[in-house]
Amino acid sequence: MSEASVHETAIVSSAARIAPSVSIGPYTIVHDNVVIGEGTVIGAHCEIGHRASVRSAMPLTIGAESLIRSHSVLYEGSTLGDRLVTGHHVTIREGTVAGIGLQVGTLSDIQGDCVIGDYTRMHSNVHVGQGSTIGSFVWLFPYVVLTNDPHPPSEVRLGVTVHDYAVVATMSVLLPGVRVGEGALIGAHSSVSRDVAADSVVVGSPAKFVGAASDIAYRDGSGAKAYPWRYTFHRGYEESDVRRWLAEAERRAASSTSDT
Amino acid sequence: MSEASVHETAIVSSAARIAPSVSIGPYTIVHDNVVIGEGTVIGAHCEIGHRASVRSAMPLTIGAESLIRSHSVLYEGSTLGDRLVTGHHVTIREGTVAGIGLQVGTLSDIQGDCVIGDYTRMHSNVHVGQGSTIGSFVWLFPYVVLTNDPHPPSEVRLGVTVHDYAVVATMSVLLPGVRVGEGALIGAHSSVSRDVAADSVVVGSPAKFVGAASDIAYRDGSGAKAYPWRYTFHRGYEESDVRRWLAEAERRAASSTSDT
Amino acid sequence: MSEASVHETAIVSSAARIAPSVSIGPYTIVHDNVVIGEGTVIGAHCEIGHRASVRSAMPLTIGAESLIRSHSVLYEGSTLGDRLVTGHHVTIREGTVAGIGLQVGTLSDIQGDCVIGDYTRMHSNVHVGQGSTIGSFVWLFPYVVLTNDPHPPSEVRLGVTVHDYAVVATMSVLLPGVRVGEGALIGAHSSVSRDVAADSVVVGSPAKFVGAASDIAYRDGSGAKAYPWRYTFHRGYEESDVRRWLAEAERRAASSTSDT
Repeated sequence: MSEASVHETAIVSSAARIAPSVSIGPYTIVHDNVVIGEGTVIGAHCEIGHRASVRSAMPLTIGAESLIRSHSVLYEGSTLGDRLVTGHHVTIREGTVAGIGLQVGTLSDIQGDCVIGDYTRMHSNVHVGQGSTIGSFVWLFPYVVLTNDPHPPSEVRLGVTVHDYAVVATMSVLLPGVRVGEGALIGAHSSVSRDVAADSVVVGSPAKFVGAASDIAYRDGSGAKAYPWRYTFHRGYEESDVRRWLAEAERRAASSTSDT
Repeated sequence: MSEASVHETAIVSSAARIAPSVSIGPYTIVHDNVVIGEGTVIGAHCEIGHRASVRSAMPLTIGAESLIRSHSVLYEGSTLGDRLVTGHHVTIREGTVAGIGLQVGTLSDIQGDCVIGDYTRMHSNVHVGQGSTIGSFVWLFPYVVLTNDPHPPSEVRLGVTVHDYAVVATMSVLLPGVRVGEGALIGAHSSVSRDVAADSVVVGSPAKFVGAASDIAYRDGSGAKAYPWRYTFHRGYEESDVRRWLAEAERRAASSTSDT
Repeated sequence: MSEASVHETAIVSSAARIAPSVSIGPYTIVHDNVVIGEGTVIGAHCEIGHRASVRSAMPLTIGAESLIRSHSVLYEGSTLGDRLVTGHHVTIREGTVAGIGLQVGTLSDIQGDCVIGDYTRMHSNVHVGQGSTIGSFVWLFPYVVLTNDPHPPSEVRLGVTVHDYAVVATMSVLLPGVRVGEGALIGAHSSVSRDVAADSVVVGSPAKFVGAASDIAYRDGSGAKAYPWRYTFHRGYEESDVRRWLAEAERRAASSTSDT
């Protein structure tokens, strides 16, 4: 059986359960309450399995074929699916449960006690407050903040919910308890204080409804629709998902033609 | 006398004055111009007492029973009171003078030359510009920025002032020279260009007055007031402060009853 | 010939081309595809020449007399001019081409595939999206984001252009494809969706024109103009540039006097 490839300067607990074929970079620390799946690569200067303030019985589980970039800190007590990819200087606190294919950009900060679906992508510098519920194939762009306290500071925690395929553009805030519907689009620099219906576009502070996402055309003048984005944007997704999306797009096109 | 517990990979200057019972994590660097109080814990990959560009005669002083989390960088020339707690990837520059119980969240960046009272709490990713004056029991939520230059770039520095018990919600900017009164509440995603009176709530960009903080009720329909928050939110504060706040709340309740 | 001063804990590839008189701090990693100029100082816990996902034939080139502060990560495939200064926890990705005197503040994140002129300054926590074009003597203040995708997520990349001497104040977003004219001023907490003419001031979300930058006076009541800022603000610039700016200011003053 091949041994994990651990840099000689890394400090790795002998209690950590690390699959063979895992690679661990220089100056990285792996604590005891950790499970790392096959083929995962961990960069330099990371801290993996950092103790939670209230000790967790649960380990930090990192799925197979993941990539954790340098200077990232992941706490014990979280379960992260296969093919996780993080940027640099990322923090993921205890109680985070995420599906497969999660991407977390540089400087993002997941505060823990949250649930995230499959193939969700956070760009740089995203802040996910405790109690958030995020679906699958969601996009959170840079400097997006998901809040949770309706009258800060208080003991009340009203996490936000973001449904599948929704997109939150740069520097927008989701206020406590807000629900963002499937495929909805939050414009950049918005402050969302009310629930957003599926396929709706809202913009501004406070954010107001401005139309349907599925009415937005590409800027290239082709007349092609830019949303649902899954009909046209496929980079990095599974072939099976892409096939499903294309079939759905064809059905919709056929149905809209027959309507005419 | 017990020795400080210094990880074998840490690099600690022999000139640093470190109390016994201090703990210093792996790969952390402690420079010479540093004083660390009893019982303080410093995590991994930190740099403590980083040289200022203009060398400071003053050391970096970290009070007793503090916790500095990993990847944080604290400069010489700052005085930080007992029970300081920082998140990860925090920067505190020279000339910061803070009281006891300061909490500075992950990715926060205190630019130095500022004064901070006791028990003030900054959540993740807060930016405190040079020349800021922050009282005690203040709350700054994620992505709050305190600015200081009224016509950037210029040599004029007009720091902001935030009085005791004030709360600045997520992603709000305090513009240069602004004063935020005691117990005032700045709503999320606001841009504050004028002084805010005590107990006032302002929201928007530019922020406008929308009411009194003390009129805001809990969202649970109980009718209970959510502000002053110190009457109901006590997590992590000293028993003596909590007793004082509860007595004040009782006096106010009695007075408002006798008014009826 | 003097040797580079490499801390004994640093890990430096023998293939890296490092000028004598370079200093490399503790726990820093320098990969093979790297060229570092004379007199440059690299702090602790950095990763220099990080591999790009798509390997670059180009090395990371860091000019002479530069200062890279701790915990920064710079990728291969970027060319950065002399006297580069970074803060802490900075990320610069592949394909960044920058002139001399670039300053990049703490926590800033340059996503790569971008061009930056000379003496441009980014304060803390600035995000430069791929495809950005930034001139010389530009100022980007904290939490400014330069975006690039007009219908996120899509394969379309419409980078922004910021011309010489322009200033973008705190927490403003430049939307995809926007051009900011020479010497323009974007007020704090703005969302810029349209091109901004030279010397214009725009504010708000969406940002609207409010006047000419060159009409803004210092707040001190002196009546002196605050813009073009280069007529009065000179800290850290080259003497030759400052002389040129002062001569230009004199000519403009003479011309405006003769107009009267």
